[in-house]
Amino acid sequence: MNCEIIAVGSELLTPHRQDTNSLYLTARLNELGVAVIFKTIVGDRRAHLTQSVKIALERSDIVVTMGGLGPTEDDLTRQAVADALDIRLRRNPEIVGALYARFAARRAQMTENNARQADVLDGSIILDNGRGTAPGQLLDTVYAGHRKLVILLPGPPSELKAMFDAQCVERLREVLPKRVIAQRTLKAAMIGESQADARIAPIYSAYRDVETTVLAHAGDITLNLSCSKATLEQAQARVDELAGKLEEELDEFVYSSQGEMLEQIVLDYLGMRGATLAVAESCTGGLIAERLTGISGSSRCFLGGAVVYSNELKTLLAGVPPTMLEDYGAVSREVARALAEGIRRKTSAGIGLGVTGIAGPGGGTEEKPVGLVYAAISDGKQTDVVERRFGGDREQIRRLASQQGLDLVRRRLM
Amino acid sequence: MNCEIIAVGSELLTPHRQDTNSLYLTARLNELGVAVIFKTIVGDRRAHLTQSVKIALERSDIVVTMGGLGPTEDDLTRQAVADALDIRLRRNPEIVGALYARFAARRAQMTENNARQADVLDGSIILDNGRGTAPGQLLDTVYAGHRKLVILLPGPPSELKAMFDAQCVERLREVLPKRVIAQRTLKAAMIGESQADARIAPIYSAYRDVETTVLAHAGDITLNLSCSKATLEQAQARVDELAGKLEEELDEFVYSSQGEMLEQIVLDYLGMRGATLAVAESCTGGLIAERLTGISGSSRCFLGGAVVYSNELKTLLAGVPPTMLEDYGAVSREVARALAEGIRRKTSAGIGLGVTGIAGPGGGTEEKPVGLVYAAISDGKQTDVVERRFGGDREQIRRLASQQGLDLVRRRLM
Repeated sequence: MNCEIIAVGSELLTPHRQDTNSLYLTARLNELGVAVIFKTIVGDRRAHLTQSVKIALERSDIVVTMGGLGPTEDDLTRQAVADALDIRLRRNPEIVGALYARFAARRAQMTENNARQADVLDGSIILDNGRGTAPGQLLDTVYAGHRKLVILLPGPPSELKAMFDAQCVERLREVLPKRVIAQRTLKAAMIGESQADARIAPIYSAYRDVETTVLAHAGDITLNLSCSKATLEQAQARVDELAGKLEEELDEFVYSSQGEMLEQIVLDYLGMRGATLAVAESCTGGLIAERLTGISGSSRCFLGGAVVYSNELKTLLAGVPPTMLEDYGAVSREVARALAEGIRRKTSAGIGLGVTGIAGPGGGTEEKPVGLVYAAISDGKQTDVVERRFGGDREQIRRLASQQGLDLVRRRLM
Repeated sequence: MNCEIIAVGSELLTPHRQDTNSLYLTARLNELGVAVIFKTIVGDRRAHLTQSVKIALERSDIVVTMGGLGPTEDDLTRQAVADALDIRLRRNPEIVGALYARFAARRAQMTENNARQADVLDGSIILDNGRGTAPGQLLDTVYAGHRKLVILLPGPPSELKAMFDAQCVERLREVLPKRVIAQRTLKAAMIGESQADARIAPIYSAYRDVETTVLAHAGDITLNLSCSKATLEQAQARVDELAGKLEEELDEFVYSSQGEMLEQIVLDYLGMRGATLAVAESCTGGLIAERLTGISGSSRCFLGGAVVYSNELKTLLAGVPPTMLEDYGAVSREVARALAEGIRRKTSAGIGLGVTGIAGPGGGTEEKPVGLVYAAISDGKQTDVVERRFGGDREQIRRLASQQGLDLVRRRLM
């Protein structure tokens, strides 16, 4: 079974507001074995809304609307769904009574427009709203010869979530064929998207029952695998089998088979080895430290470090000899090495990481272009330096450089 | 003129990812006088994608797709748009050549699938992608007797923004009816949203012809003012008049009247005073340095600093006496002061900034709860410390603490 979610509200078509309810609903629906195949965002215009509902009824088994159930003139969802299905709305006297009682309890006068919230699609189940005035509706109906479930939910997130969890999940479970979805997320670092996909597409394409999506961002690749079967065992077996093959193909590029972030994996490895880390960052300007300290509990293994943006600070905080900076330049293999070794020595950390490079947009030369980055790692016995030439803008280069630095630590501890 | 935005990608139909590009595009389109009337989110399935493009062509003047232009099997946007319009794709040899050159420059082998990115809709203008491999396309065409603009943009936000700003805005302006919009963006730091709105709502509500939106995020408030008139002078006069009144009301909380980020303002002030800055960060873990170094040219005034996550590093890199850490604890007014003074002395910076606090979720006590933050600033003559108790999760507290630190520098230099 599949579903289309329609988010209703002109404010969702401005630059300032965004539907987030659909993420929550998608998670719940996926758990029930329902895939979301379209999302539509439409304003408070009756013709647009009616058309959107019709299109959804034509292509999806379940149609969920969110919003437009309130008392005002621009709350049009009930009317639009009635138009699309060509059925009638009836004003429900019990709901009208409950609305009056609700207002009376607050010693407030109920304005006439509130009664519109009592208009119910013929044949639908009323979904009580414990947190607001507008009730929802669930309609099990037939459209163009096919069975359709239509669910009208209120827009405010707390009302929507409470109503869906308490009054829709069980009803959907009864109606839906028994399907269970298993998921896995693999993550890989410092391999290009097209290079990775060229290697893995032949593998995942052969698993037609597993949906595989490939996402790439600044040296980070995320593979989401998802499979729906009658039992969890069957679904999990297919997902795990494919995950195993993908992991084998991408080999040491894979850093996580459960979706953790690279900084989390680095901290986990440090914890397992009882090791500590300190960093000396030039071009990344604190980004590596910021990523690591973004994770709660990082203080157990991450000591901190130095942001050595100026040459003087490279010397003062990380012990890089001034003559080395003169001889080789701040962006050089030698200085990267000295940063890693210097910050390790200075802080008595088990591992020192140093990163220097040219983030741009200015500062590049023919010999040392924008995007040139050196990252070095030292554990006191051995120091390794890698040279990379990254593409992209300042933000991308900094992000790639931080990813390269963290990946060096991961590989050393692997 | 109206527009429909189609966000392409199966990952956007999972609970884990969401289209955010459309917010940016909507802002740009609104500035051009174009209203967004529908947004559709569709997965990487050719039939679904083709159908979505057809529906959009039937109801909207401008259709913008985002994503699905990459090199992999599931990048189907080019093909789907060609199907919907019933026109041909041709492989463009110049783009193929540029792709080969791009890979060669990085000493990488181009895999065959990359050439798919050179498939161009018959008659479309090619939009160069300075930040990625996939070019965009802009097609001025006729569908069912009506003129339509179809724009294909890449999905990664930095690629999409750069391409739209540099290569679409002017072309759209030429085609669209003339209308002039004036805008201003005011920004304020470290004042609560409801407090700010209570003060300014009576003022902006009186300007019905100026659209005012208030956005708040972690100690940062953005006020967008926008007014549409027959001439720029008329529109600008209204916007500037309201901006002046809002600035007067919010007074010293306002740090920018042209929309610059706080870190940019801090660097501008440092530049104007010929001053330099160094930071010692505990709970912010590099975030302040990362924000400053994210801005190109920051090296002129920002020297760098220390991420002093462990107590040992507070002593080693910022000179905090070990006895002080024992007597007062790492999160204390005294240690914040010592961090600011110590990093200033150590680096010979004009200004030293120190931040220490409890970001949570663990580590709080009754006396020193999660969210307690001390920020200190020293210029060698005077050191000031502020104590704040922030709400929110770890990320919000760290962001608020970094904002407080930067705002201290701004106020000192104001």
